[in-house]
Amino acid sequence: MSEFDDLPAAGNGLLDRRLFLRGGLAGGSVLLTASAAGVEREAWMKAPGAPMDEIGEPSAHEAHVKRTSVRSSPGTTGTGVSFTPHEHLDGIITPSRLHFERHHSGIPEIDPAQHRLIIHGLVERPLSFDLNSLGRYPTVSRINFLECSGNSGASLAPEPVQAPLSAVHGLVAASEWGGVPLSALLDEVGVRPGAKWIIADGADSPLMSRSVPLDKAMDDAIVALYQNGERLRPSNGYPMRLFLPGWEGNMSVKWLRTIKVTDQPAMSRDETSKYSDLQQDGSAKLFTYPMGVKSLITSPSFGQALGPAGVYQVSGIAWSGSGRIVRVDISADGGKTWAEAALDEHVLPKSLTRFRSAWRWDGSSSVIMSRAIDENGNVQPTRAALLENRSSGFFYHYNGIQAWQIAETGEVTNVYA
Amino acid sequence: MSEFDDLPAAGNGLLDRRLFLRGGLAGGSVLLTASAAGVEREAWMKAPGAPMDEIGEPSAHEAHVKRTSVRSSPGTTGTGVSFTPHEHLDGIITPSRLHFERHHSGIPEIDPAQHRLIIHGLVERPLSFDLNSLGRYPTVSRINFLECSGNSGASLAPEPVQAPLSAVHGLVAASEWGGVPLSALLDEVGVRPGAKWIIADGADSPLMSRSVPLDKAMDDAIVALYQNGERLRPSNGYPMRLFLPGWEGNMSVKWLRTIKVTDQPAMSRDETSKYSDLQQDGSAKLFTYPMGVKSLITSPSFGQALGPAGVYQVSGIAWSGSGRIVRVDISADGGKTWAEAALDEHVLPKSLTRFRSAWRWDGSSSVIMSRAIDENGNVQPTRAALLENRSSGFFYHYNGIQAWQIAETGEVTNVYA
Repeated sequence: MSEFDDLPAAGNGLLDRRLFLRGGLAGGSVLLTASAAGVEREAWMKAPGAPMDEIGEPSAHEAHVKRTSVRSSPGTTGTGVSFTPHEHLDGIITPSRLHFERHHSGIPEIDPAQHRLIIHGLVERPLSFDLNSLGRYPTVSRINFLECSGNSGASLAPEPVQAPLSAVHGLVAASEWGGVPLSALLDEVGVRPGAKWIIADGADSPLMSRSVPLDKAMDDAIVALYQNGERLRPSNGYPMRLFLPGWEGNMSVKWLRTIKVTDQPAMSRDETSKYSDLQQDGSAKLFTYPMGVKSLITSPSFGQALGPAGVYQVSGIAWSGSGRIVRVDISADGGKTWAEAALDEHVLPKSLTRFRSAWRWDGSSSVIMSRAIDENGNVQPTRAALLENRSSGFFYHYNGIQAWQIAETGEVTNVYA
Repeated sequence: MSEFDDLPAAGNGLLDRRLFLRGGLAGGSVLLTASAAGVEREAWMKAPGAPMDEIGEPSAHEAHVKRTSVRSSPGTTGTGVSFTPHEHLDGIITPSRLHFERHHSGIPEIDPAQHRLIIHGLVERPLSFDLNSLGRYPTVSRINFLECSGNSGASLAPEPVQAPLSAVHGLVAASEWGGVPLSALLDEVGVRPGAKWIIADGADSPLMSRSVPLDKAMDDAIVALYQNGERLRPSNGYPMRLFLPGWEGNMSVKWLRTIKVTDQPAMSRDETSKYSDLQQDGSAKLFTYPMGVKSLITSPSFGQALGPAGVYQVSGIAWSGSGRIVRVDISADGGKTWAEAALDEHVLPKSLTRFRSAWRWDGSSSVIMSRAIDENGNVQPTRAALLENRSSGFFYHYNGIQAWQIAETGEVTNVYA
């Protein structure tokens, strides 16, 4: 590894992103071999392989890659969560089958031929749309993240949770969402003067309900019909959901059934007793919609282990509900010094951005962390800075910096730093 | 629909893209309703729904969305194809489970812990890489299409094939592909002077083999490990494949096992007797790599049916192996007049681009078609123009314009126009 000794580097072996992008930098446990000529063919090369099929399933060797921490409130089967296993993923798209869940009374089994979207209230012409009629309207598709505002709440615990990344931070995912701009449907029904809000209800048994300012509804909100190229899956709102780019996930009402145009919010359960932010004076702040700027190192992360000292790739995801990520910094000395990470080619607004850096680990105990900055100048706060301004009952919208400790053995644990 | 009568439009009711993007334009079979208050709750709202799960599967109502025309050569089980069902998809990402297949002796069942990538030949240090060591190298991810150069070959038939779009054009798909730049690995082994080609072999039983110019290998080629955020699926090369953005799919060798650096191509079966282009003078043109500029209207397409006369969305995909799509034109009068389609937000190089237009169908027999133009000025040719320059044995790289006829009944069939 002597070729690295003269390279400029941030503290503790963190290399500059421009060097990371140049080829031939990283080491790794490569083996010398005389040539390929003498290599025996493996068993799977000695017979014809499996046939084509209507569905291409993952390898059986990847069966451990699944949604984690699937759990429901006591006495219920569908009131809870499951998490996206980012510790096993790469890139900026989350496979639909692994997109996290947060349901309030399970997944309704909806017959798409019977389902209707009704838009009513302060409108000229209340209308009912079936799936076929929606398909005739202008459609748009774009890649956006979706994050539950309760994501990472476990980072408020007094001691760092020793569990895989997904169990703490797995309520975020990104998909290509395709559907009809809500503005087109609102134009069709004719919004009447005085309207300021829409109230969206789901077709699940608790009628999950959230109020959305009309401005957002007319801006980039869509009635989503497609996720990653195919119809939404039931656990993400089949056959249609509201989708509000950048805003807390709970508002992107799944199984969307009615939209009522009103002059005031509904003050529903999920915007008052839940999904509100308790302040230090005892009041609750309502309607805090955009998700903050945030990042996570997904590899290495808890439960993984480095091998011998040498160069490793540090990789993760960053996002902001306010727009594009412009920079991600990485530290390998617990925040004393920082170096800029490389960003993958697609840096899209209100989407996951993949960052990477090469780290020459010297084998000593080290703390790595990432810090994201968005195009509006928002900087991801440290955990300590975030807690300073919070009451102990303020649970949602946690976007503090996540730190991982690498032990001399190479084992990775969760630390507050 | 009287509000449309004064709008500027291309021939036969094709509306301008700027109008398409404005809300409130499209009609559709919407129904008036007094209010939502009296609407009875559907059966699925009257009981708790299904629980969360480790894997989020598609709805049973979408079981018809699967790879089509799964077929193998006589006497074999895995020498053939399956097609991506674009007639059911939207957006620019293809779900991995629906990505088309083209195998030459089935899918090997590879143990990723045993699999190695060996790079040898004209190199300073022949090396063997396992999956763990590759994970330590710089990784990149980006969204690119992959198209088999035999895609759409059925459009050479004397009479238009009356079958769903996928059966003719389903050998194209797009994914986020993540992996190690091949340039980094070639830097690591040290390419020796005189090297001009690499020869890539797969770990399937026929050792699928293709030669790739060294320039491409050093440019944007990657050893792909991830597809749409998760590990490659077996039918797309698990645990690793070569990926060459924009070039004919057969070269992106699946189950990549060896790369030999050489001074000349291997002249393997799949670059001589197959995947070569028979010329009118009887010679065969070899090594025609980039896929041409191309587009397809996916909706409406064969087998679908419009309802009553009115406004419909026309939607499709466009791509070019040479870069970005800059424009897609749509005609609704068999090519006499054209109007510019709207493009979805993400227009990425060497990727699928989604285009859309609103069409005011007047109920008469009509022929719709799309024509793509890329950033290098390449224009998708008509079928007639393409055939003019081809011998009858020239099968690959078909990128002619696809036309669909809408009958007065609304039924859609395949036509040559």
